[in-house]
Order: sequence, then structure tokens, then C-alpha cells
Amino acid sequence: MQDNTPSEVLLDPVMSAADLAHEHVADIAEALNAMPTEAAAEILQHFPIEQAVEVLDQPELESADELIATLPDDHATALLTGMSADRVAGVFRRMEEPRRSTLIERLDPETKHAVKRLLAYPPGTAGSIMTTEFVSAPKTWTVGQTLDHIRRVERTRETVYAIYVLDPRTHKLVQTVSLRRLIAGEPGAPVLSVASPRRPVTVSPQTDQEDVARLISKYDLLAVPVVERGRVIGIVTVDDVIDAIVRESTEDVQKFGGMEALTEPYMQIGFVEMVRKRAGWLCALFLSEMLTASAMQHFESELEKAIVLTLFIPLIMSSGGNSGSQATSLIIRALALREVRLREWWRVALRELPTGITLGVVLGIIGAVRIALWQWLGFFDYGEHWALIALTVAATLVGIVTFGSLAGSMLPFILQRIGFDPASASAPFVATLVDVTGLVIYFTVALAILSGTLL
Amino acid sequence: MQDNTPSEVLLDPVMSAADLAHEHVADIAEALNAMPTEAAAEILQHFPIEQAVEVLDQPELESADELIATLPDDHATALLTGMSADRVAGVFRRMEEPRRSTLIERLDPETKHAVKRLLAYPPGTAGSIMTTEFVSAPKTWTVGQTLDHIRRVERTRETVYAIYVLDPRTHKLVQTVSLRRLIAGEPGAPVLSVASPRRPVTVSPQTDQEDVARLISKYDLLAVPVVERGRVIGIVTVDDVIDAIVRESTEDVQKFGGMEALTEPYMQIGFVEMVRKRAGWLCALFLSEMLTASAMQHFESELEKAIVLTLFIPLIMSSGGNSGSQATSLIIRALALREVRLREWWRVALRELPTGITLGVVLGIIGAVRIALWQWLGFFDYGEHWALIALTVAATLVGIVTFGSLAGSMLPFILQRIGFDPASASAPFVATLVDVTGLVIYFTVALAILSGTLL
Repeated sequence: MQDNTPSEVLLDPVMSAADLAHEHVADIAEALNAMPTEAAAEILQHFPIEQAVEVLDQPELESADELIATLPDDHATALLTGMSADRVAGVFRRMEEPRRSTLIERLDPETKHAVKRLLAYPPGTAGSIMTTEFVSAPKTWTVGQTLDHIRRVERTRETVYAIYVLDPRTHKLVQTVSLRRLIAGEPGAPVLSVASPRRPVTVSPQTDQEDVARLISKYDLLAVPVVERGRVIGIVTVDDVIDAIVRESTEDVQKFGGMEALTEPYMQIGFVEMVRKRAGWLCALFLSEMLTASAMQHFESELEKAIVLTLFIPLIMSSGGNSGSQATSLIIRALALREVRLREWWRVALRELPTGITLGVVLGIIGAVRIALWQWLGFFDYGEHWALIALTVAATLVGIVTFGSLAGSMLPFILQRIGFDPASASAPFVATLVDVTGLVIYFTVALAILSGTLL
Repeated sequence: MQDNTPSEVLLDPVMSAADLAHEHVADIAEALNAMPTEAAAEILQHFPIEQAVEVLDQPELESADELIATLPDDHATALLTGMSADRVAGVFRRMEEPRRSTLIERLDPETKHAVKRLLAYPPGTAGSIMTTEFVSAPKTWTVGQTLDHIRRVERTRETVYAIYVLDPRTHKLVQTVSLRRLIAGEPGAPVLSVASPRRPVTVSPQTDQEDVARLISKYDLLAVPVVERGRVIGIVTVDDVIDAIVRESTEDVQKFGGMEALTEPYMQIGFVEMVRKRAGWLCALFLSEMLTASAMQHFESELEKAIVLTLFIPLIMSSGGNSGSQATSLIIRALALREVRLREWWRVALRELPTGITLGVVLGIIGAVRIALWQWLGFFDYGEHWALIALTVAATLVGIVTFGSLAGSMLPFILQRIGFDPASASAPFVATLVDVTGLVIYFTVALAILSGTLL
């Protein structure tokens, strides 16, 4: 697959299509991803419609919207009609006007209605990732009738492993039956006899996709029904959820790295887009960090008297930032996994306070020993008051690591409280927050310890 | 559920068990997680064996090993015999000796053999998370025979949705059949007639669990067979994989935050363990960061001559660290998702170089404007050479942001190349790396620009 370079492929799309046709549909998608859009569209046109639809239904196929936009109207409509409704909605979500409206209008009324409804849900919700193709059965059916129905519709449904049993009159969800229990049941028995005795786990179309993922993972489901006013309007399957989880954790890591999350893979994103996504936060952090220059200006006279103090500024500041970054990463994940709740912030603060003090004492001892060693071994002369300087550095480290741990752990809570994503609390954000305070702590401690000697 | 405080529960385990018995098994696990081990074990003893087994089979139940270790030998053995082999192996992996050996020896020979084999695979591999309970059928069977077999064994298998068709003589894997295709097939037709025409996707027991997750997600599988010398020795199901992905991304965020990944949820981990996991990296980073003190000592005479230069040290260092942290977070995820390969490091370097220069120029301009503004507005007097100082700061920012982006993006590659997890390249690690170099760049640029005037 790796050797299908674009130039080879462009030579003969018919032959390339024939070659690719034997591969697994996920591998075909991967091969098309590696080609320029025009070449990929050409190959797609040489596939039988059914196989082209299968390829386009792969969430791994990256620019399905561009591929379809490149095809002639008739061919594009045929493919869109065959594809699953959730995938079609996804394609239209990214397609540009006026092509988008033209193609939506060409769909048959039923598909058009389903797609328009999906497009109405905000991105990231259960409604936006659900599929409308699922299996349901009225509660009056027997096990045998339900199985016969599944056999008939099997080809056209994304999953048939969960069957939703509805009230025949109100069409409301009554119970969920799994295919495994169904095939183990007596054909003549009522379908509800093999249903799980428990209330079905459901979500609403507005439920966040991360919460859907958590439910599916917690209850080991293959799909969860999306319910509105008691009726099943779609299902979110475990595949959709894995994709959502993977995308989500990539965004979390990128945000934690101090940038806007990318919408495309690293090697595909354009230069301007890349710079834009990174420059925003970098500039914001830079402007905040300018407060350090102001803080240092404020202490300029102390700096002039005791230039030796400047030597430890980077060391002290980075220790604060590092301890803050640790605490933030812990709390971001704990909040994301619902291990801690917003109202439990004080329990976290009560854990971070002693942890921070302990870590600060450890670093403080190492720092003081380093200064004493260099002085004794003659590597550097910190002057006659070297012991007081060592004490200043050690005391500052205790203060700054404690402050870093507390600030780093509280920041995600504060962000969530004021309505932001706690994962916006990036490592550089915390470091910047701690840097300014760190300098103030350092010079305040220095003034307290060194007044009358160095200062 | 949240209101089951431990004290209430301790009042009457029989009543609590009766209360809980009606809940979903995942909710029971959650309720037991919130209790002290003794209380949870007491409740578990009052459940019917079958339900207790179901609860213990939940990967969400956090201290199944301690719970089982607390129970009398007979009861523990009965539960272990009922549980799925992969879960039993997971329990034994964490149980302490001598209880572990005692209980393993009490298992029936078949379970003991299965568990011992699972325990032999290193943690994090397909072999260590696979279940040995799957459905297989000889290729000589018909669709009807296979369905009858599934009906018989359904209760004892973790999943029945993928059926592995074996050669009856060699027991080697021939093909995979899905239950949905099977029920849609003619009962009299050979089972292979409904098999997928493609070669089955398989993994080896040594395959990393992340790679298994990627395959399951890519090919939209419900389970992937683990194959050794052509024979299926177990399967990894989509549930196991979701748990593995979630655990993995938590570890990645924690490692990126600059600490050892926690093995337990934040609120459950002990104080000493927490300090230990954080102190290791914090001390290592602190010791490396000491090089900044050495670098500053080296430039002490310059510092004394131009104290004004110290004002910008925090600003410049943090900009290098922030741009490095961005680049690292991007590359860690790109490598984890296989968007970039190790040998493509040079393509990444070619992207990061212009990106870094552009970002550096942006920050450089902001920095120079800030100095010029403060000077003009009279907020601070940088002396007669303020323009040269502004130039020094701007030029340094270009250099340091470029270096930060390059170093940050290359670090994960270097780590992977020398056999480490690229996700060990944490934000604090990169910041520390860039800090020392940043100081050297700053003073070198300053010497070049300010020689003869300030220096």
C-alpha cells in the first residue's frame, strides 16, 4: 500500500482501481488518503457503486467531502444515497457551498429529511454522530418474527446486534434486546422474554459525545440509543465512540501543550493554519509573561545589590512551573474521567497542599546542598553570605512548589466553573501563571532573609 | 448510589446487598468502589454467586484483587472459577503472595492452565488483555450447526458476535464469520459461504495493546483474534480496547505533565505513592535545570555590566519552553496515531523550521514594541541603548522560538529511536532542555549586538 505513490496511480486509474478492489475497505480508504483528491476521485469512479459506498462510509477516509464534490452530480447523488445517513451528514458538514445545497436537494426525500435532521445537531453531540439506521421491533413480536425481520434488513443497517423493542402504538422505547440473547431464545416466545430486565441505558441527542463514550465503555455496550421524547431517533455505535475518544484525547494533548487543537493530521495541515493555531496562545502567554519583566523592574534595586540572586531565577521559576504542570495534568484527567467533581475542589486542595510542601522541601534540600557544595568545592563563590543565600533559595522553593501545585490543581476547576473546558489549562498556561507569582515570592523571601546583609 | 456512605453500608450488608442487587452490574461495581474493602467484600458475599461473578468481571471494579483476597478460600475459588479467564489473570497480576499462589493452586486444572498462560504475557500486550473464551467452528460445519453451537455456549462466552472458523485437522484459523452474516445465511449452507472473502485481521500475543486498539478501530471490528502459529489462542474485544485506550490517554497526559503515570484514580492513590510518582521527574528536571545557574554564572560579568538584560530572562526562557511544548504535543500525538513515522523526522523538521521562525518573528516584534512603548511612555528607562536592547530581545526570541520548535518536535523522535516511549517527552522536559540553550542564545546574541555599548 505504501508504494502506491501518486504518480504511479495517475498512470492508470482503471488498473489501480482493479488492484485496490481486493483490499480491505479500510486499506482502500488509507490508500486514497495518500493520493491527491483528483486521482482518488478518478479511482473511486472506477469502483462498482456498492464498493465505492463502502469506502466512503469509512470514517478513516479523510476528505470524503472533497472527493464527492469532485464527482459529476449523478454519480455523487448515487453514492450519497447509498451511504449511511450519519456519514452523509458528516460529509455535508464539511462541504462548501454552493455544491453542498445542490447535492442535498438532489437526494431522495427520505434521505434528505434524515440528513437535514442530523445536520441540525451541534457538532460533538450524540445527535451529530448518531446513525439513523438501526433495528427496532414492536413488543408484540415473537423472537422468531424479530429474527426474520433482522435477516431481511441486515444488509442496510450499521449494526444489528442491539434491537430496540418499541411500544407499537406510541413508538416509545420499551426495552433493549441483544442479538445473542435473541438467537438463544425460543422462536415462539415473545421478544420481551429475552430482553434485559433492566431499564435501557439511553442518551439524548444533546448529550456530549464524551459522555456517550463513557456510558458505552461503562456498560460494555455495542450501541446506545439516542432518545427524544421517549422515541429512539438514532443510535451511537461503539466504532463512532472509539473515533470520538481518540480524536478527543488528541485534542486534549494538543491543548495541554498550549495551542488550539488541530482539525487535521499534522502532516496534512497547511502552514498558515498551523502558525495561526499556535501563534494565538503563544502571543497570549507572551503578553502575560511580560508581567515577569514588570515584576523584575519593580525589584531592580534589589537585583543591583545582589546580582547573585539572579543566578537562581530560572531554576526557581521552572520548578514552580513543573510542579504546576504535574498537578494540572492530574486534575484535567481526573475531571475528564469524572473521578473528581467540581464541588470536590477542596478535597483536591487538601491533597495538593501537603504534596506540594513535601515536594518543595525535597527540592529545597537539593538546592541548598548544591549551593553549599559549589561553595565548599570552590566551583563558584557566592560571597560571605552564601549560607543565607542557600536558605533563601530553599525557602523560596518550598513556597513556589506549594503554590505551583495548588494553582495548577485549582486552575482546571476554575476554568470549568466559569464555563470553559478544564483541558484548556495547558502546561504553558500554568507555568506563566506561576512564573510571575514565583518572582514575587522569591524577592519577598530574599528581602525577609537577606535584609541587613546583602539587601 | 452516591449516598451509600460506608457507615450506612456497614450497618447491614444483607440489606445493602439486596438493595444493590437490582442495579446494573456496572453501577454495583461503582458503588463497591466507593466503599472500604471489608464492607464491599461483605456485600459481595451476600450476592448470589452468579451475580457476584458478573460484578467481579467488570473491569471498572477497582480492587477486585483485594476483595477476593479478603474472602474465605472456598468462596474465593468459586468466584474465580466463574469469572472470565482474562479478568482472573488481571486479578492475580495484582494480588500479593502468598494468597496468590494459594488461590491459583485451588483452581480446577483447566482454568489454572488458561490463567497461567495469560499471566506469562507481559502487561500491555494483546496476550495480557485477551480473553480465552471465544466461539470457534470447524470449517466442515453448516450455518445451522454453527448457530446451534452458539446457542449452547452463548452464556459462557464474552462475545459471540465473531466466530472463528478453524481447519478441523490443524486447528488453524481459516476465516472469520460475523453473527449477523450467519443469521442471514441459509441453515444448510456451509459456514464458509457466509464468511468474509478477505484474509482475517489478526494480532500476535506480543502485539502492543495500542496497536490492537488501532486495528479494531480501523477495521471497525468487535473483536480481533490473537493468533500464535496459525491457531487462535484468544480474542481481544472492543470493550477491552476502549478501556486500554482511555487508560493510555490518561497516562499520556500525566506523562506529558512531567510525572510518572498513576496506576490508580487521583482520589484513591496514597500520599506517599503520589509524592514518589511526582518527585522523581521533579528532581531530575531540577537537577538538569541547575545548568541554568551554571550558565548564568558563566555570564556573570556580562550580567553585572548590563543588569537590564536580566529583566527579560523569564520572558525569553518561557517563550522557548512554550513553543517547544506545542511542538512536542503535536508530534507525540502524530506518532501515537501513526500519522508520522520515525523515518519521516526530517519532513517534520522541514515543517517546524519555517513555523518556528515565523512564530519567533511574531513574538520578537511584540517584544520589541513592548520595550519601545515602555521607553516612550516613560514607564521604565532602559537607558540610552534601549533600541539595541529591544533588538537583542527580538533577535533572541526568533532564535529561541525556532530552537524550541525544532528541539520540541525532534525530542519524541529521538526518544522513540533510542527505545523509549515518545510520550515521555513531557512539557517540563522540553522546557528544561530549551531553558539552558535559551540562556546561552540570549547572552551570545547580547554579546554580538551590545559589545562596545553596554557590554
